[in-house]
Amino acid sequence: MSDTPYFKHHVFFCMNTRDDGRESCGPRGAEQAQKHAKKRCKQLDINGEGKVRINQAGCLDRCEHGPVLVVYPEGTWYTYVDTSDIDEIIDSHLVGGKPVERLKIK
Amino acid sequence: MSDTPYFKHHVFFCMNTRDDGRESCGPRGAEQAQKHAKKRCKQLDINGEGKVRINQAGCLDRCEHGPVLVVYPEGTWYTYVDTSDIDEIIDSHLVGGKPVERLKIK
Repeated sequence: MSDTPYFKHHVFFCMNTRDDGRESCGPRGAEQAQKHAKKRCKQLDINGEGKVRINQAGCLDRCEHGPVLVVYPEGTWYTYVDTSDIDEIIDSHLVGGKPVERLKIK
Repeated sequence: MSDTPYFKHHVFFCMNTRDDGRESCGPRGAEQAQKHAKKRCKQLDINGEGKVRINQAGCLDRCEHGPVLVVYPEGTWYTYVDTSDIDEIIDSHLVGGKPVERLKIK
């Protein structure tokens, strides 16, 4: 952990859609949320090396909390309901460095 | 960083295939490598909460080093050529806690 991370905050959105009837993040707005986050970070000019990367990911195996995302290297896990929650995570955590306690999952 | 991470090592394989002719990880064996890693971690019984998670990810934006993967929360980036490199990353880094210097990218 001594090196400066390539991305200051690397955000992974679970995009998985289960086809076995179990709950999953995909049908709960993950794609829209991820696109929204990517667009907003570009608008804020916080994306890129040394800054923020918004990524798609396969199943993060926390389906029961879905939709979920995780921010590394902090390892902070979030759930969200809509894009206003995503905005709060971006503004408070990614820009301000202050995690959003009400959306965190353990 | 004070909390114990949900996954001790969370590994993301870039699975992206570019359709614009530029280099990308997908055509360089990313899918085979990710499946291999997932299977091997299951065989070693190191996958799951508090242990290792092998994930697929969209473009990690380091195409020029592809194929690439990143291990969090350490933030260690690797390139690899084949599944023997993947085995070395699993055995040395994920099991032994010792990064594989020769495969690291900055």
